Amino acid sequence: MPETQITDVAAYMAEVGERARAAARAMARAETAAKDAALTAVAAELDAARDALGQANAADLEAGAAKGLDAALLDRLELTPGRIDAMIEGLHQIAGLPDLVGAISELNYRPSGIQVGRMRVPLGVVGIVYESRPNVTADAAALCLKSGNAAVLRGGSEAFHSNRAIAECIQRGLAAAGLPEDAVQVVATTDRAAVGAMISSPEHIDVIIPRGGKGLIERISRDARVPVIKHLDGICHVYVDDRADLDKALAVAVNAKTQRFGTCNTLETLLVAAPVAGDFLPRVGAELAGAGVELRGCERTRAVLGDARPASDEDWDTEYLGPILAIRVVDDLDAAMDHIERHGSRHTDSIITEDYGRARRFLREVDSSSVMVNASTRFADGFEYGLGAEIGISTDKFHARGPVGLEGLTSQKFIVLGDGHVRR
Amino acid sequence: MPETQITDVAAYMAEVGERARAAARAMARAETAAKDAALTAVAAELDAARDALGQANAADLEAGAAKGLDAALLDRLELTPGRIDAMIEGLHQIAGLPDLVGAISELNYRPSGIQVGRMRVPLGVVGIVYESRPNVTADAAALCLKSGNAAVLRGGSEAFHSNRAIAECIQRGLAAAGLPEDAVQVVATTDRAAVGAMISSPEHIDVIIPRGGKGLIERISRDARVPVIKHLDGICHVYVDDRADLDKALAVAVNAKTQRFGTCNTLETLLVAAPVAGDFLPRVGAELAGAGVELRGCERTRAVLGDARPASDEDWDTEYLGPILAIRVVDDLDAAMDHIERHGSRHTDSIITEDYGRARRFLREVDSSSVMVNASTRFADGFEYGLGAEIGISTDKFHARGPVGLEGLTSQKFIVLGDGHVRR
Repeated sequence: MPETQITDVAAYMAEVGERARAAARAMARAETAAKDAALTAVAAELDAARDALGQANAADLEAGAAKGLDAALLDRLELTPGRIDAMIEGLHQIAGLPDLVGAISELNYRPSGIQVGRMRVPLGVVGIVYESRPNVTADAAALCLKSGNAAVLRGGSEAFHSNRAIAECIQRGLAAAGLPEDAVQVVATTDRAAVGAMISSPEHIDVIIPRGGKGLIERISRDARVPVIKHLDGICHVYVDDRADLDKALAVAVNAKTQRFGTCNTLETLLVAAPVAGDFLPRVGAELAGAGVELRGCERTRAVLGDARPASDEDWDTEYLGPILAIRVVDDLDAAMDHIERHGSRHTDSIITEDYGRARRFLREVDSSSVMVNASTRFADGFEYGLGAEIGISTDKFHARGPVGLEGLTSQKFIVLGDGHVRR
Repeated sequence: MPETQITDVAAYMAEVGERARAAARAMARAETAAKDAALTAVAAELDAARDALGQANAADLEAGAAKGLDAALLDRLELTPGRIDAMIEGLHQIAGLPDLVGAISELNYRPSGIQVGRMRVPLGVVGIVYESRPNVTADAAALCLKSGNAAVLRGGSEAFHSNRAIAECIQRGLAAAGLPEDAVQVVATTDRAAVGAMISSPEHIDVIIPRGGKGLIERISRDARVPVIKHLDGICHVYVDDRADLDKALAVAVNAKTQRFGTCNTLETLLVAAPVAGDFLPRVGAELAGAGVELRGCERTRAVLGDARPASDEDWDTEYLGPILAIRVVDDLDAAMDHIERHGSRHTDSIITEDYGRARRFLREVDSSSVMVNASTRFADGFEYGLGAEIGISTDKFHARGPVGLEGLTSQKFIVLGDGHVRR
């Protein structure tokens, strides 16, 4: 539906929701081969539509430039040939993953004689609200499709034409594989009321996944009446224990901070046990300074690293997403875990130690979605974890925690097999 | 705190929430032996406090009678010696279950060299809002405690004194085992604002489980800003296929309807394939009528069972929770699944058939928390499924589905083991 024809957003969204529900039922029973054929067909459609995608994207870029969007936003918005290649590659990858839907596990006999097990099933309708990157349209659609869900996608208004062009490819691919086109719907209005309708309609949408800036995620979490899989801050820690191998500590700390600055699993606060601060801080400080990282330290840090700026209380609670690192010297493992409990965001935290008992305690006691020993926080990622793909990272505990792949888009029902069995 | 001292409910509930958070941290790391010792100690305290429990319960019963509560409600409220025995037995049973917390699964090497696995962890703070039965206080506390969570319990105002008396036993048991008394807190006010505070404080409570009538559950689900594990209707179906063994069909249908009338997994609508309606309906009709069940049928049913009252459209959507059964003759499996899709509550549905392909389709395509073949819907229960205990049945898909035991009160975090590994 062209946007200009949508005057009653509530009625339009109700229609989208009802279509999604109907499509979800068909998708839940769709065969693996049909889903994989659709993914492959969408990839072919995207490849064949490079000109149309380019024109739609040019319209968005032009409108964005006219509206004065900044360079970073325009960059995220751009559908370069390389990004189209990546969308196509992503679709083929997801087609190649095993189908989890219908998998039966733990099927055991009970004393009553019945067999009880669990069968993996789709969640139903997944709503995704995202911002400027149009490639999310294809990536998110592919994950929902493979996991047997229907999807309602609401992209950023600045990517409207690009998203519509991608959506047309997706729908042609679905049709080619004999699956309902309504299985993936891209909301055809930029009216914000559409998001309001999505997050308040549990009758139409089973889960909302917001992808974008913190403001978007906070707004949606606050107002949603539909369950939300969300990721807020990534204030990640590396704790260098006094029984650490300092060579490993150096490699991990530098990698966790500098391999990419702007990601949620980037190191933001380095905690160093007091007995090794004198040895370790000069080494790590020199290497990070060489990589252009600004250091902000507590008093004990600055006693060793005179060049570090003083850290304020606010620094411990800040996700820099840039070349800045907060450093704190702590007395011991307990002080490190207290700091993480108080200031962390329950995303990813790593201990560097050769001590078996301390590693065991850290793994058990730190309440974060990823807890690591002697490894870089940058590994917290669906691909690195072998999930095959990632629709987001959850810092919640309910339902899904940590990187969310296909499994996070499913649930399990119980199945019972009997032969005329009745309850006594 | 005695109720009379609580004037500022919001401040009181914030204090309860903060104490629960602190206790949750200690509970998450509590050793299995300490948790089991606490459960056993609570059982001993309850056994030693029979007189005090009886007096508190008598005060509630007297106040309830004076307020004019009906006989069914007064019955639910009563703490008979047998019910105290059952609470004690339940505590010992839960102490005997394996501890899931800390269990590591799927720990595998990745191409990067790191090992990635999952560790089962408590949800944190579980809020339970329930109505008249005081035994829920002990049962729910035990499940939360064993699964390493802290609990905030808000029982019905009519059971106030009974719940407080049970809470004292729980707290003495926790203290005896060296666990924080705040791990289980029973809200010490009957003010409804306390429930409002619980369901709108994600900073204090990680999940709400309402147990009680549909009104309570709907109200909480509508207003909650905390995730809710809930169970609404139990409109359960048995579909007797035309390839059914009619002896098994008879046994299952009668058991599903009559073994207990008032439970959520009781059969409410019987669907019968047209080709066997003439054979099957007289047999099942006679047996159910003999058990005092009122039959309400569609026209095709009444053509065979002349005594059945006509069913209205409303009957297909009604959970009778009593000796009434709706019966509908359907053309085939697809018509049966359409009926279940339209009128069911996604609780528990069973097919009776000897046909392999139809059983396979029913298991895959029916979207209910329990889907059965040749078995009575009455089996949908945490004990029958081998979960060891049950805190409720979820008809949602998100997080937990079907009977919810200890596992439903937990989540999984990722753990990563490396040896100085960094991301390339």
